[in-house]
Amino acid sequence: MDDEEFKQRLEELIEDRHSGASELARLGLEIAAQCAQSAEVKKTIELRHYLAERAEALGAVRPSMSPLKNLMEEWKESLEVLPDEVNEARVTATENAMHLAEQSTKASFEAAALTSALVGDNKTIITHSFSSTVLEVFHLLKSRSVRAIVPESRPLCEGGDLAEHLSQWDIPTTYITDAQVGLFAARADVAIVGADTLLADGSTINKAGTLLLAMAAHAEKVPFYVCCESFKICQQEEPPALEEMSPAELGTTQWPGVSVSNIYFDITPAHLITGWCTERGAPDPGIGGK
Amino acid sequence: MDDEEFKQRLEELIEDRHSGASELARLGLEIAAQCAQSAEVKKTIELRHYLAERAEALGAVRPSMSPLKNLMEEWKESLEVLPDEVNEARVTATENAMHLAEQSTKASFEAAALTSALVGDNKTIITHSFSSTVLEVFHLLKSRSVRAIVPESRPLCEGGDLAEHLSQWDIPTTYITDAQVGLFAARADVAIVGADTLLADGSTINKAGTLLLAMAAHAEKVPFYVCCESFKICQQEEPPALEEMSPAELGTTQWPGVSVSNIYFDITPAHLITGWCTERGAPDPGIGGK
Repeated sequence: MDDEEFKQRLEELIEDRHSGASELARLGLEIAAQCAQSAEVKKTIELRHYLAERAEALGAVRPSMSPLKNLMEEWKESLEVLPDEVNEARVTATENAMHLAEQSTKASFEAAALTSALVGDNKTIITHSFSSTVLEVFHLLKSRSVRAIVPESRPLCEGGDLAEHLSQWDIPTTYITDAQVGLFAARADVAIVGADTLLADGSTINKAGTLLLAMAAHAEKVPFYVCCESFKICQQEEPPALEEMSPAELGTTQWPGVSVSNIYFDITPAHLITGWCTERGAPDPGIGGK
Repeated sequence: MDDEEFKQRLEELIEDRHSGASELARLGLEIAAQCAQSAEVKKTIELRHYLAERAEALGAVRPSMSPLKNLMEEWKESLEVLPDEVNEARVTATENAMHLAEQSTKASFEAAALTSALVGDNKTIITHSFSSTVLEVFHLLKSRSVRAIVPESRPLCEGGDLAEHLSQWDIPTTYITDAQVGLFAARADVAIVGADTLLADGSTINKAGTLLLAMAAHAEKVPFYVCCESFKICQQEEPPALEEMSPAELGTTQWPGVSVSNIYFDITPAHLITGWCTERGAPDPGIGGK
């Protein structure tokens, strides 16, 4: 993979609106593995240096989404102990990337399994946006009389993708505008969302609108869980930047003097979150054992 | 106006998504005045009976919007003292309707004037949906460095109509999805919304999404005012029905087993409202002098 192609793959990750944070991280690991296989280097030390740079670049493209950064960091650390022979080193680096992707997939599944056990039979779940882990929760509960309330999640309405899956699984679903979340929170037994990043203070970064759902759930005493793999825990103290996407995604008129804002994420504070549900437990005690 | 035409005018009021509660009430009074002029009756007692029925029908078409009901009630009461001569009675009934419409317009303007004085210079106002009274607040403040944050207000995006007006008045405006309200509340100095109905317990019915804005404003300690004429105060104990409109307005796919909900209004509880601003005062002490 030459520099031009790598740059293009980075652009694809930046522009990707369909994949969640976990899928993007796994896509990043795939790209990393391809870099390991195709690197034009002759020595392991060169390979390590080259791949560390690639990992840094990959880890930085989606600042609001921690798993990409975290998994790239882990992969970069694993490069410290590569075999001396360069082609063996390529194989090890590739295998390490694939192994991390598998770990992430497994962790997401286990988080979903623990969450579905926590929810139990015959419940109405309200969510926001599209999370592959929350989708798995619905999948695990589909023969257990689960029902769904799904906000559209403007601007690109990922809620519609979720509704389509739930329809295929015959899960009774109510689809609403984001503005109706205040009306519908009281009709749910539990609120469950995915996450792009879990922060050290127990707060959570997820698609814009999650904060409003958490407020509405809190007002109605509906438990609010964040369900995801622990690779989403952000180790740094300061919260990462909240990515802003193209205003054109709103599909609105351009009025002079009116700036259209499209911040993709918001931060839900810990006091509105009943618990994180990760592969380590539901609820997960978190970094500081909250 | 024959029965068929009257039925059609009622349908137009039911289908009207552009006019706010106050404008709809004034449209109702116009229709009432036309009924008074064209009624095929020979005696004042017949006219009174006929118009009372028309007023009942007009007052019932938009249950979430109190001014229509309230102004029709007031008009119906005014019919008790009509002149004996039937054509004089027509004139009086017509004049009464026009007078009530003027009172309503004046009250809305005075509510806006008191609110703009309360807000003062150089402030950022966040609102929700489109209210002609809130529009008047912006109009009164346009040379006083006011700025606006305007959520789109799905499904029909009345926020866009507001943004267009603000653009014409050169008021710096940020236009956002409803899902970003949690992010943007903290950037406002004050939240101001209109209302469809003010309830006896101090709570307020307005376009769906208002409740979420109130929660977000409350969390950020941003004062939240409801600005409207006092004809919007609902006298009955029980809150009126929250109207539901066609799911087709969301413009979404029809997935089997997925019901699309389009409830147009929500109720913001009194504890999230800093005050009502009506023509009687800003804040208005309300029914019970809260």
